Amino acid sequence: MNHSPDHKPDYQSAAADAISEEIEIQGHIIDSLLLPKILDEITVLGGDFSINDISIGQLRTDSSHAQVKVSAKDEETLQKILTQIAQHGAVPVQKHDCILEPADMDGAFPEGFYCTTNQKTEIRIDGNWTSVDLQEMDCGIIVSPDRQTAHCLPMSDVQKGQLVVTGYQGIRILPTARSSPQTSGFSFMHSTVSSEKPKGVTVREIASEMRRAREGEGKILIVAGPAVVHTGSRDYFSQLISEGYVNLLFAGNALATHDIEESFYGTSLGISIEHGSSTEEGHEHHLRSINRIRRLGSIKNAVDKGVLNSGIMYECVKNDVTFLLAGSIRDDGPLPDVITDSVEAQRKMRELVQGVSFCLMIATTLHSIAVGNLLPASVKVVCVDINPATVTKLADRGTFQTIGLVTDVEPFLRVLLDEINKSE
Amino acid sequence: MNHSPDHKPDYQSAAADAISEEIEIQGHIIDSLLLPKILDEITVLGGDFSINDISIGQLRTDSSHAQVKVSAKDEETLQKILTQIAQHGAVPVQKHDCILEPADMDGAFPEGFYCTTNQKTEIRIDGNWTSVDLQEMDCGIIVSPDRQTAHCLPMSDVQKGQLVVTGYQGIRILPTARSSPQTSGFSFMHSTVSSEKPKGVTVREIASEMRRAREGEGKILIVAGPAVVHTGSRDYFSQLISEGYVNLLFAGNALATHDIEESFYGTSLGISIEHGSSTEEGHEHHLRSINRIRRLGSIKNAVDKGVLNSGIMYECVKNDVTFLLAGSIRDDGPLPDVITDSVEAQRKMRELVQGVSFCLMIATTLHSIAVGNLLPASVKVVCVDINPATVTKLADRGTFQTIGLVTDVEPFLRVLLDEINKSE
Amino acid sequence: MNHSPDHKPDYQSAAADAISEEIEIQGHIIDSLLLPKILDEITVLGGDFSINDISIGQLRTDSSHAQVKVSAKDEETLQKILTQIAQHGAVPVQKHDCILEPADMDGAFPEGFYCTTNQKTEIRIDGNWTSVDLQEMDCGIIVSPDRQTAHCLPMSDVQKGQLVVTGYQGIRILPTARSSPQTSGFSFMHSTVSSEKPKGVTVREIASEMRRAREGEGKILIVAGPAVVHTGSRDYFSQLISEGYVNLLFAGNALATHDIEESFYGTSLGISIEHGSSTEEGHEHHLRSINRIRRLGSIKNAVDKGVLNSGIMYECVKNDVTFLLAGSIRDDGPLPDVITDSVEAQRKMRELVQGVSFCLMIATTLHSIAVGNLLPASVKVVCVDINPATVTKLADRGTFQTIGLVTDVEPFLRVLLDEINKSE
Amino acid sequence: MNHSPDHKPDYQSAAADAISEEIEIQGHIIDSLLLPKILDEITVLGGDFSINDISIGQLRTDSSHAQVKVSAKDEETLQKILTQIAQHGAVPVQKHDCILEPADMDGAFPEGFYCTTNQKTEIRIDGNWTSVDLQEMDCGIIVSPDRQTAHCLPMSDVQKGQLVVTGYQGIRILPTARSSPQTSGFSFMHSTVSSEKPKGVTVREIASEMRRAREGEGKILIVAGPAVVHTGSRDYFSQLISEGYVNLLFAGNALATHDIEESFYGTSLGISIEHGSSTEEGHEHHLRSINRIRRLGSIKNAVDKGVLNSGIMYECVKNDVTFLLAGSIRDDGPLPDVITDSVEAQRKMRELVQGVSFCLMIATTLHSIAVGNLLPASVKVVCVDINPATVTKLADRGTFQTIGLVTDVEPFLRVLLDEINKSE
Repeated sequence: MNHSPDHKPDYQSAAADAISEEIEIQGHIIDSLLLPKILDEITVLGGDFSINDISIGQLRTDSSHAQVKVSAKDEETLQKILTQIAQHGAVPVQKHDCILEPADMDGAFPEGFYCTTNQKTEIRIDGNWTSVDLQEMDCGIIVSPDRQTAHCLPMSDVQKGQLVVTGYQGIRILPTARSSPQTSGFSFMHSTVSSEKPKGVTVREIASEMRRAREGEGKILIVAGPAVVHTGSRDYFSQLISEGYVNLLFAGNALATHDIEESFYGTSLGISIEHGSSTEEGHEHHLRSINRIRRLGSIKNAVDKGVLNSGIMYECVKNDVTFLLAGSIRDDGPLPDVITDSVEAQRKMRELVQGVSFCLMIATTLHSIAVGNLLPASVKVVCVDINPATVTKLADRGTFQTIGLVTDVEPFLRVLLDEINKSE
Repeated sequence: MNHSPDHKPDYQSAAADAISEEIEIQGHIIDSLLLPKILDEITVLGGDFSINDISIGQLRTDSSHAQVKVSAKDEETLQKILTQIAQHGAVPVQKHDCILEPADMDGAFPEGFYCTTNQKTEIRIDGNWTSVDLQEMDCGIIVSPDRQTAHCLPMSDVQKGQLVVTGYQGIRILPTARSSPQTSGFSFMHSTVSSEKPKGVTVREIASEMRRAREGEGKILIVAGPAVVHTGSRDYFSQLISEGYVNLLFAGNALATHDIEESFYGTSLGISIEHGSSTEEGHEHHLRSINRIRRLGSIKNAVDKGVLNSGIMYECVKNDVTFLLAGSIRDDGPLPDVITDSVEAQRKMRELVQGVSFCLMIATTLHSIAVGNLLPASVKVVCVDINPATVTKLADRGTFQTIGLVTDVEPFLRVLLDEINKSE
Repeated sequence: MNHSPDHKPDYQSAAADAISEEIEIQGHIIDSLLLPKILDEITVLGGDFSINDISIGQLRTDSSHAQVKVSAKDEETLQKILTQIAQHGAVPVQKHDCILEPADMDGAFPEGFYCTTNQKTEIRIDGNWTSVDLQEMDCGIIVSPDRQTAHCLPMSDVQKGQLVVTGYQGIRILPTARSSPQTSGFSFMHSTVSSEKPKGVTVREIASEMRRAREGEGKILIVAGPAVVHTGSRDYFSQLISEGYVNLLFAGNALATHDIEESFYGTSLGISIEHGSSTEEGHEHHLRSINRIRRLGSIKNAVDKGVLNSGIMYECVKNDVTFLLAGSIRDDGPLPDVITDSVEAQRKMRELVQGVSFCLMIATTLHSIAVGNLLPASVKVVCVDINPATVTKLADRGTFQTIGLVTDVEPFLRVLLDEINKSE
Repeated sequence: MNHSPDHKPDYQSAAADAISEEIEIQGHIIDSLLLPKILDEITVLGGDFSINDISIGQLRTDSSHAQVKVSAKDEETLQKILTQIAQHGAVPVQKHDCILEPADMDGAFPEGFYCTTNQKTEIRIDGNWTSVDLQEMDCGIIVSPDRQTAHCLPMSDVQKGQLVVTGYQGIRILPTARSSPQTSGFSFMHSTVSSEKPKGVTVREIASEMRRAREGEGKILIVAGPAVVHTGSRDYFSQLISEGYVNLLFAGNALATHDIEESFYGTSLGISIEHGSSTEEGHEHHLRSINRIRRLGSIKNAVDKGVLNSGIMYECVKNDVTFLLAGSIRDDGPLPDVITDSVEAQRKMRELVQGVSFCLMIATTLHSIAVGNLLPASVKVVCVDINPATVTKLADRGTFQTIGLVTDVEPFLRVLLDEINKSE
C-alpha cells in the first residue's frame, strides 16, 4: 500500500507495480531516534515500509538492529528515498557499486551528480567501501584515476575527464553520533521559527481552518494586541467580526482604547492612520477617548448612544461577540469594561474558553501566553507576530501545539480576509 | 499666510481671518534645538509664525531669547499649537490664568481636561504660577479647594467636585535640560524604526514614487535578497519587472539560484513554494540548478535555449533589465554570471548606479549596505526588511537618507503591486 | 546498571538496591517518536530501563506495543520518572488507584499535589478510569465528593476539604496525536534558540572545550565579525590569541580594518572605544587606516615596521596565527591582505579548515554560514550572536551540529577569558 | 574660552593661543536644524564659537544667514571642525583654494587625502568652485590634469601621478535639503538603539550613577523581569540588594516565583541553573514553590520561618527593601504578596516612586512601560534589554529620558557588580 504524504485514502494495491529494496540499520537506532526518522521519511517521500526483522537492545548501551523493506511506485522515488535515508545510516542489504561518470566539461558536473552532505561518507568501488576525503556539503565526489581514493570537490573546480559519482547507489553515510542534548548546556538547533519560509500557504490554511470552525460547532477565539490598530489593520479585523469569523475576543485596555481612539480621532497612539503622520497632540487622544467612555459607563453604552459607531469594539457589540478586556499595570484609565483584577480575569477567561476549537493570537505576548496557559492541548492555536521571540516563548511555556507565523500584522490580516472570502 | 505642512503653494491671504498669539522662549534655545522644534511644530500643526525679536547668546553659555508671533486659522488650532509648543517651554507673552472646572462625576474628568506630560509643570492661578506636584504623564491636574496647590491625578481617582484644569491656558512647562548626548555613552532615544507604525501609507508612497520614476528620466534600482524567493513572492517581483518598474537589479548568487531553483523544481532551498512543505531531497535542487546553468554558460543562454522560462532572472533577460550578481564567500557554484571579485563588482555597480533616482532594497543586509555606500545622498532609498537591525545598520553606515520599512517581504510586494496597478 | 545522565563510569551493581516498575505503551510508538522519547527521559532522570517485550507493526498503520521495566535507585526517583513518562502515554502494567487527600486550607493545595498538563488526562478511582474535565495546565485535580467526576482547578480556587489528587499514581495521560509536521505548512515549535536560558554553564563548557583543543591535536578556528571591535572587546580577543587559544582566524575586511583603526585612532567606526562617544570625524579613521596599510603593502609589513603594534591583527602576526580575510562588496579599500575573489577565498579556506576540531563563530552571519558550509559535521561549532536569527540561519543551511548562544559579544568574551584562565 | 566637551570648568584664557576662522551659513538654517547642529559639533569637537552676525527670516519661507567665528586650540583641531561642519554647509568667509597633491603610488592616496561624503560637493580650484562628479562616500577626490573637472575615486583605483585633494581647505558641501519628516509616512533614520556600540563605558556610568544615588538622598528603584533568574544572574542581583544599591524593587509574580523556585529546587522554569540542563519534572517546581508560599501566607513569613533563605526576595526581606509584586493575567498562583488589581498596583507604585532619583529597568517590557509612565522626566532611567524593541517602545510611550542598553542580562549584572565594587 502506498501511503501518500497527504493522507488521502488510496485504493490501489501496492502489490504488483511497486518496486522495493531491503535496507538495514545498526546501532542505537531507537534511542538515537534514527529508526523513527527513517520510517517517517520513507512515508513523507511517498514510499512505504514494512519491518522484516528487528532486535532491540535490552539495555541502553546495547546495540539494536533492524531490517526494513522500502517500497515505492517507481524507481526514481525509490532512489530518492534510499538517498535520503542513507543520510541516517540506512544501507541497502544488497550492495551495489557506486556509478562513476567522467566529467564532460570543466567547471560543471554531469547532470545526475551525487550531492554531498557534511556527514562522513563512504562509496563502494569494485566491491570495496572507500572513505571519502575532504568531506564537505554541497559538493560532488571525485574518484581518483586508480579508483583507490575519493574526495569531495566543489563544482567550480571539476576538470573534464575526472570521475564523478552519479546517482544514489553504492553510497553510505555514517552519521555523527549525537551527544545526548539533555545532559549538557549545549543544544542542537532545529530552526522552527523563521521569517524566511513561504507564508501564503500558511495563511491559506488558517483561512480554511477558520471557515471550517465557523461552519462547525467549535468557537473561534481571537486574542489580539493593540498593534492591530497601530498598523492600520483594524478594518480588516472589524470585517472578520462582522462576517462571523470571531466568536470571542480577548484583549487588553490598549486594543480597545486605540480602536476607539481611531473611531473618535482617526489616530492610534497619536499617529494618523490615514496619513501615517504623527499628530503632535495625539498623545491626548487616547486619554480623551478613555475618559469619554468612562463618562458613558461602558463601551456598550457608547455604541447604544451612537457615540461609538465603527471599529472592532463597535462590531463586537453589534454582532453580540463576547469580549473580555483584561487589565494590566500599564493601562491608562482604564476603560470601564476592563477587568482589573488578574485572578478574576483568569477565572472569566477560563469559563469562556470552554468550547473554543481554534484560537488565533495576534501581536500580543502577554495575552497570548496567558490564554495559552488556559487552553487544553487539543485546541488549535496559531500565533502571529513579527517578533519570533513571542512564538518561542509561547512554546517554552508549554503551549507546544502552537503554530507560529512570523509576519507583519497588517498584511497578514489583509491577506487572511482575502483568502477567507476568495474561497467562499 | 498659512503654510500648509505639505508645502503646496497657497495664494490665500492670512490677513483677515487668522488669529494669533505672541509667545516667548528663553534659555539655550538654539543649541538645545528648542527653537527649531517649536517653529517646526507650529507649521506642522497648521499654524504660521513670524519671529518678532531674537537675541542669540554669543557664546555657548550665554542665554538666548526669542519672541514669536504664532497665528492660525481658528481658535482651536491656535490652542492646540500653544499647548504643544508649551511642552518645549514656549510661554504666551500675555498671561492668562488657567481654567478650572469642577468634576461632574467620580472616576472621569470633564471632557476638555488638560492632559499632563512627565515634564515639570506650572499653572497660573489668580495671577500666580503654582508648581504642580506628583508630576506624572497622562493624568489631569487637580487644584486644591484653597487654590494654593495643585497635583496630578489619574482619571480613575478623581472625585466629583474636585477642581480640574481644562483647556490649554495658563499652563507652562519647564523642560528638563538635556545633557549633551555626544559627550557620554548615554544617548536619548527617538524611535525611528518601529514595526508598530501604519504601513499602508508608506507603501502607497513607494508606489507613487515608482510610478513617478518610471515616467521620469531616473532609473529604478532594486537590490534584493533571496528571501524574495523563499517567502514565495517572486511572482510579484517578476511582475514588477515585466511591467517596467525595474531598470536595474543588483543581487547575489542566492537570489538568482533560488529563483532558478523555483523555475526548475518548484522549491526554494528545498521548501516547496506551493505547499510550504519541505521536500527532503530539496537541498540538492539549488546545486543541480546552478550546475545546469553552468553547463549552459550563462543565464541568458538558458533563457535563449528555452531551459529557463519563468521567474525573476527570466524576466530580466526578456525585458532587457540589466542585472548584476555579486559573489560572496557563502555562494555555492556560483552561477556563471556572478562577478566573484568584490572590487570588480563594486566597479561595475559604480558605473551602473549613475542615473539611478530611486532605489528599493529588499531583505538583504550585505547588498543594501554595499549599494548604499555607492549612492549619492540625492538618490531616494527605501529599505524593506522584517528585521529593524538592517535598516539601523544602513543608517549607521552613512546612508542617512534611507527610509526604513519594517515589514514582511511577501505581503509588502503583494501590496506594492496592488497599489501600483490600482492607481494607474 | 544505573546510567547516570552525565555518562560517568559507574561500577555499582543495580541489582540489590534498585526498585522498579513495569510499564507499557501502545500505539504508533515508533514512528510517533514516543518510545525513544520515553527511553531517553528514563535515563535523563537518572533511571534505567530494559525492554522486556516489543512488537512493532509491520506497516505504518499497524499499532505497536512495548513493555519496559523501569528501575531507579529510590522510590522518589522512580515516581518522578513514572510521572514524566506518563505524559507520553506510558502506563504502569500493575494498576493503582490515584491518591486523594483533602485540602487542609483555602487557596492552596496539600504539598504533594499532582500538577496538571494541558493533555487529556484520566485518573483511576476505585478501579475505574475517570476522565478529568476542564483540562488546563498548571492546576491541581479535584475529585467530586461522590468520587464520580474530576476536574482541574487552579490553586487560588481550592477550598478546604476538597479532594485533591496527590503523588503520581493512578494517573494516565492520552497524548494528542501529532499530525505529521512535514505534510503541512504548519509546524510545531520546539524553542531551541532563546535568550532566556542560563548562559554561565554554556560559556564554561566552551572554555573547557577550548582548553581541551589547545592541549589536543585539533586546531581552533575563530570566525569573527567587526562587532568584536565595535563593542570594545578586542582586547579580550587579542588575549585569547596571545594565550594560544586561536590557531586560525577567518574574518573580513571590516574586522581587520576596525581593529587597526582602534590601534591607530582609538576608535571603531568613529566611536571612541574608551569614552563611548562619537568622534565626528571618525568616519575618516577607517579609510585612513586602510590607506596607510595599503601604502605599506600588507598588515605584516605594518607590524614589522612598528607602525601597527597592538590588537587582533598584530597578535596574529606576532603569534604566527594564520588569518584569512575574505572580501565582500561592501568593503572599503580593501586592505591589501584581503582575498577579493570569493571562489579563491573559498578554496583557501577549504585548505585551512583541514584539521580544525573546534570552531567558534562570533557575531558574523555571512562568514559563519560560509565557513559552516565547509566544515564536516564532526567539527564542533559554537555560534555566538546577539541576534537569534543568525543561529537559526546557520542551522537552516545545514550546519546542524551548531550550538547556539544568544548573547552579547563583549561580556561573552570577557567571561570566556575569565573561565579559561580560572580553570587553568 | 575653550568649552571642552565634558563640561569641566576651565580657567585658562582662550585669548592668546586659540586660532580661529570665520564661517558663514545661508538658507533655512534654523528650522532645518542646521545652525544648532553646527554649533553643537563645534563644541563637541573641542572648539568654541561666537555668533558675530545673525539674521533670521521672519516667515518660514524666508532665508536666514549667520556668521560665526570658530576657534580652537590648534590648527589640526580647527581644520577638523571646519571639515565636519562643512558637511552641513558651513563655508569659510575667507576663501582658499583646495590643496592638490599628486598620488605617489598606485592603489593608495597620500596620507592626508580628503575623505568624501555622499553629499553634493564642490572644490575651489584657481579661485573657481568646481562641482565634483560621481559623488560617492568614502572615496578621494581626483582633479583632472587640466584642473577643469574633478570626481570621486575609490582608493583601489588611484594611479600614481593623479592629482588628489588633501586636507580640508577649499571644499564645500551642499547638503541635500531634507523634506519635512512629519508630513509624510517616510521618516529619516538616526540609529539610537544598536547592539554594536561599546558597552563597557555605559555600564561604568550606570555604576557611578548608582554609587552616587546610594550616597545621596535619592532612592534607587529596580524594575526587573524573570529573565534575571532564568539567565542565572540572580546572585549578582541579590548582592546588589545586600550591598545597599536597591531601595525599591518592582516586579511581577514571575520574578519572585522563579527566584523562590531556584532557592527551593535549584531550577528556574525547570531549567537547572547550575547545569543548564532541563530537569523534565521542572514545570512542577514553580507551582510547588508558589503553593508552599501560599501555605505560609507571605514571602516574609517564609523567610521568618527559615523556609526561604537565599535569593532576591530573601535579601529584600532581610534588608528591609520594599518590594511590590504586580499581578498579570499570565500568573500562576499567584504568590500571596502579589497585588492582583492593576489599578490598586498602580496606586501603590505611584506612592512608592516619590523620591526615586534613579531607575534601572531590566528585561521586562510590561513593567518598564508601566513604571516609565509613572515617573517624572527628571528621574534618570536606564533600560537594559537584549531586545532593542523594548527600549524603542519605552521611548515611544513617552519616557524619552530613557537611556537604552541593548545587552544580555547575566553579563550586564556581573559586570555592573564588578564596576560598582571596583571603584569603591
